[in-house]
Amino acid sequence: MSEQKATNVHWHGGEINRPERAQLLGHGGATLWFTGLSGSGKSTIAVALEQALYQRGVLVYRLDGDNIRLGINKNLGFSAEDRAENIRRVGEVSKLFVDGGVIVLSSFISPYLVDRQIVRELHEADNMPFIEVFVDCSLEAAEERDPKGLYKKARAGEIKNFTGIDDPYEAPEAPEVHLHTDQQSLAEEVEHLIALLEKQGLIPAAA
Amino acid sequence: MSEQKATNVHWHGGEINRPERAQLLGHGGATLWFTGLSGSGKSTIAVALEQALYQRGVLVYRLDGDNIRLGINKNLGFSAEDRAENIRRVGEVSKLFVDGGVIVLSSFISPYLVDRQIVRELHEADNMPFIEVFVDCSLEAAEERDPKGLYKKARAGEIKNFTGIDDPYEAPEAPEVHLHTDQQSLAEEVEHLIALLEKQGLIPAAA
Repeated sequence: MSEQKATNVHWHGGEINRPERAQLLGHGGATLWFTGLSGSGKSTIAVALEQALYQRGVLVYRLDGDNIRLGINKNLGFSAEDRAENIRRVGEVSKLFVDGGVIVLSSFISPYLVDRQIVRELHEADNMPFIEVFVDCSLEAAEERDPKGLYKKARAGEIKNFTGIDDPYEAPEAPEVHLHTDQQSLAEEVEHLIALLEKQGLIPAAA
Repeated sequence: MSEQKATNVHWHGGEINRPERAQLLGHGGATLWFTGLSGSGKSTIAVALEQALYQRGVLVYRLDGDNIRLGINKNLGFSAEDRAENIRRVGEVSKLFVDGGVIVLSSFISPYLVDRQIVRELHEADNMPFIEVFVDCSLEAAEERDPKGLYKKARAGEIKNFTGIDDPYEAPEAPEVHLHTDQQSLAEEVEHLIALLEKQGLIPAAA
């Protein structure tokens, strides 16, 4: 589904680019890609990090499976092909935000290595920072939390192809960040991410 | 193609929303949607407006047929169905940027009334400012300019379904802005748009 169909197009460099926007905002754009089981804590961490970054004057925006699937990806389901297209589109939207100067927090189960690799390569091809954050948590702990009641439905057979139950989760092999949400506190996780962003020069050090 | 397929999803309101981002940036988000024939001047105006807004400290981002079709919409061609899906996706991306606090300049031929109406309604449903800018220009003048050599190819039959040649352009019936690029100067057009954004309170008045 991702072959290039339109051929009479070319990239408009435009006059205002990433350096100008970074100067305006005081920081550049970057994608933090949170991957992990449903219930692992991806959205919780993203919301907390969003708050922490905002308090530092950083422009930050969250993309997640829920708000994306109600909008741009409303015409996609959960087949293997649709899951791949879902992640590809989110990767492209993330890139647009990075180009726009924003730190984007993309939280998606994104269970397949190949799909996440595609998103990584999309970013690297244009020298856009991409930080994969593996939100690790045992299936038992995630199922115990079950914040949306989805594991219960999957166990009852009401949801098919549910990651961790009857569809695989392929753990990242070399993520930039590996969190263990059944062992760390939320504050520790956020501090870890903030420190990494500072260290990489993606946000200014705290005053 | 746009029925809602995923049913186990809900909107994450999150903790940082449009008001917080507007406070950070000093302005809110809005979509300016430039529609008109190929060669009418959409991108030229968008680039000039982007510069003018940036000079005022406004975070602005351009979406156009070229950079979108190389990325998120690379799997779409120019059939009627694909054109509609192209515009729908761009409308959704525009909304995400508006939610993110950005003034987004979306330049697409977007020749069909129904597609533009869908984008307008997507914005209005979430109280997001949507300004349709009709970049009006006679077919003769656009074809005379032919900046990408596309009219020549269309006349030679090398490109099919080309807007204005063998595919219709449906002019907006009630656009917020109606520019005549074969009669106005670029500076006049940009000034008109800046004045409108100020009047609507979407950007602060010049110091």
